[in-house]
Amino acid sequence: MTTQRLSSFHPPRRTLLGPGPSDMNPRVMAALAQPAIGYLDPAFVTMMEEIKELLRYAYQTTNPLTFPLSGPGSVGMEACFVNLVEPGDKVIVCRNGVFGGRMIENVERCGGTPVILEETWGEPIEPQKLADLLKAHPDTKIVAFVHAETSTGAQSDAQALCDLARQHGALTIVDCVTSLGGTPVAVDDWQADATYSGSQKCLSCTPGLSPVSYSERAVAKVKARTNNPNAGKVQSWFMDLNLVLSYWGETARTYHHTAPGNSLYALHEALLLLKEEGLENAWARHRSNHEALKAGAEAMGLKYVVKEAARLPQLNSVYIPEGIDDLAVRKTLLNDYNIEIGAGLGPLAGKIWRFGLMGYSSQPTNVLLLLSALSAVLGEMGYRHEAGAAEAAAHHAYAAQHAEAAQSKRAAG
Amino acid sequence: MTTQRLSSFHPPRRTLLGPGPSDMNPRVMAALAQPAIGYLDPAFVTMMEEIKELLRYAYQTTNPLTFPLSGPGSVGMEACFVNLVEPGDKVIVCRNGVFGGRMIENVERCGGTPVILEETWGEPIEPQKLADLLKAHPDTKIVAFVHAETSTGAQSDAQALCDLARQHGALTIVDCVTSLGGTPVAVDDWQADATYSGSQKCLSCTPGLSPVSYSERAVAKVKARTNNPNAGKVQSWFMDLNLVLSYWGETARTYHHTAPGNSLYALHEALLLLKEEGLENAWARHRSNHEALKAGAEAMGLKYVVKEAARLPQLNSVYIPEGIDDLAVRKTLLNDYNIEIGAGLGPLAGKIWRFGLMGYSSQPTNVLLLLSALSAVLGEMGYRHEAGAAEAAAHHAYAAQHAEAAQSKRAAG
Repeated sequence: MTTQRLSSFHPPRRTLLGPGPSDMNPRVMAALAQPAIGYLDPAFVTMMEEIKELLRYAYQTTNPLTFPLSGPGSVGMEACFVNLVEPGDKVIVCRNGVFGGRMIENVERCGGTPVILEETWGEPIEPQKLADLLKAHPDTKIVAFVHAETSTGAQSDAQALCDLARQHGALTIVDCVTSLGGTPVAVDDWQADATYSGSQKCLSCTPGLSPVSYSERAVAKVKARTNNPNAGKVQSWFMDLNLVLSYWGETARTYHHTAPGNSLYALHEALLLLKEEGLENAWARHRSNHEALKAGAEAMGLKYVVKEAARLPQLNSVYIPEGIDDLAVRKTLLNDYNIEIGAGLGPLAGKIWRFGLMGYSSQPTNVLLLLSALSAVLGEMGYRHEAGAAEAAAHHAYAAQHAEAAQSKRAAG
Repeated sequence: MTTQRLSSFHPPRRTLLGPGPSDMNPRVMAALAQPAIGYLDPAFVTMMEEIKELLRYAYQTTNPLTFPLSGPGSVGMEACFVNLVEPGDKVIVCRNGVFGGRMIENVERCGGTPVILEETWGEPIEPQKLADLLKAHPDTKIVAFVHAETSTGAQSDAQALCDLARQHGALTIVDCVTSLGGTPVAVDDWQADATYSGSQKCLSCTPGLSPVSYSERAVAKVKARTNNPNAGKVQSWFMDLNLVLSYWGETARTYHHTAPGNSLYALHEALLLLKEEGLENAWARHRSNHEALKAGAEAMGLKYVVKEAARLPQLNSVYIPEGIDDLAVRKTLLNDYNIEIGAGLGPLAGKIWRFGLMGYSSQPTNVLLLLSALSAVLGEMGYRHEAGAAEAAAHHAYAAQHAEAAQSKRAAG
């Protein structure tokens, strides 16, 4: 054992402009440092109820079963599949990035039969393809798709996909990990059945929690399983909603597992910040900073991966210019500027960068910092572009937004 | 939506003397509040390696695969079962409390066949019973037991149980949730195969992490599964060690899930505190405060549930005196003294209290506070006992310990 040399860990102060985690508001960090209390303490239970209420606001739903699971987004995903997919169920999985692939893994491990709708990475899911597949597989029980693909920055039309599934009598599982808080997520309008997200993206909370929301239809299916000998028990004890409900449900609280108290304090504060700002204002802020970043990136000659109509404002993926060393750029940004950006994954590894402007990280100062640093680093590496043009374009975009806002205000007044 | 009235959550300042979570050292709370960094940041990876090293010290093992899972202790438990139990495997589960029962649930959900060794709640597992059961079931693949039963305060002889399992060619799964850091856990001496714990008991860290340690034999079984068509893939994607290893293993780091960064900062600090104190000193401290609490509780006329030889110093379970209202006492302690103690579970609900003296909560000041408050509350409820006797007995126990320590020092010097 050679631990003698170890000392307290103090992380470097980064600016997180990758695919998550994003920077936390100081209020969220302060919330994290509060003392522990028991997971059945009346004060704790009150806080849990407030979190559920705030999450319903974020998800735009009245689903009673809306709460955070005690694990990262991957637990949220797995919880949706293990509870809803019964052995033998046919499940259409739409794959246009990493997380669709992970969904297929989940279906297989639950004993379900995946039917895969393949889409090019960077493209949204084409509703017509889902319509065709549903017609070809009328016994489909569930349709699963990713609303906002973190690996590419593409957003699919959740309303259209949920409508099609419902018309064919299938339940829906919707991944909103990167969308919640950044672009509109409307669980009730979509009539989505099982939705999950993560705490560390546009909610800007500490990683390790997965807010989920289940419709009455989804809850009914889970509750029916215990009486169905063919379906059997949910294969995961930890994720079995029948058990989790005893702690997070509406009736008397009983022990299921020890809730991650400090992380929940932080989630409460992060959701409160979102409520104080207002969902519409949060979406507009993400949009505004995206426009400025886009103006700057394009002024630098960078090309976006995703077509404009499907582009996520909170996750900007651009092609790495030819001849530029991916790793060298990311290392220099991290070491010299303390900026983290995201690398490409899967078939896009080494080909794209992902610039995240999520939650508290979505600020004009960060847009300008990133453009300035990236412009300098690319310049040092011999990439030809006009110095200062990116920052000027971003400033111009913000100025245009301010002028437009002032005009709207005058028109309204 | 009626969230307008909500404000930041500030927990009441409790003294946590139940079965966990325990109070956190201020250094751990300060660690929690540090800014986020990426889960592949070189600084983060260095911290991960230090956590693994510190956990090997806490577990007294050289197992390379020793790391914290991103979920509470129930995830640690489930991860051990889903990885090691293949469909059809016969698993002996020793049940002498709540958590043995949960193990049986896990075996069933993995498609294993549980063989149950039943023991009275509050008693340790009798090794002879395991020996007999192993003889009756020579095809047993795994033996699972709880080292320190949180629901009763009984500690079983892990060395003896692991030895028996090994002699019969079975792997072992050992629950050390409440023992790690409070009483000796010696994974290498025991030759335990899969061990899990929780962050919020004697490690006094924030809840939500489950430190695990796997032997080479356990890792070999998990790795072999992918090549064994009958075993099939591990049913949980999130807990599949073959995948988790790509992030926490010894080779290049790749993305598996977003690690709960702030909680890991806290675990690093909590483990560092344990290392600074020294394992032996931490065990002695838990023993010392237990002796004082016991002296006081017995002076008050309270009777312990567990026989002395199997009693956990960090979890003191006592019978509720006849005629005393369980809930009223716990409510008064919480509301008037900000003290949380634990209730009984299962067949012991309403019959016992559980006084935890775990990690940072194991302090003489807390022993005296609890005795003083409990004595007063019981007195108000008409329980007859001599005022001040409990505190005096505790002071006497500490004085005797100090005298003994001084004598040892003189003898040594």
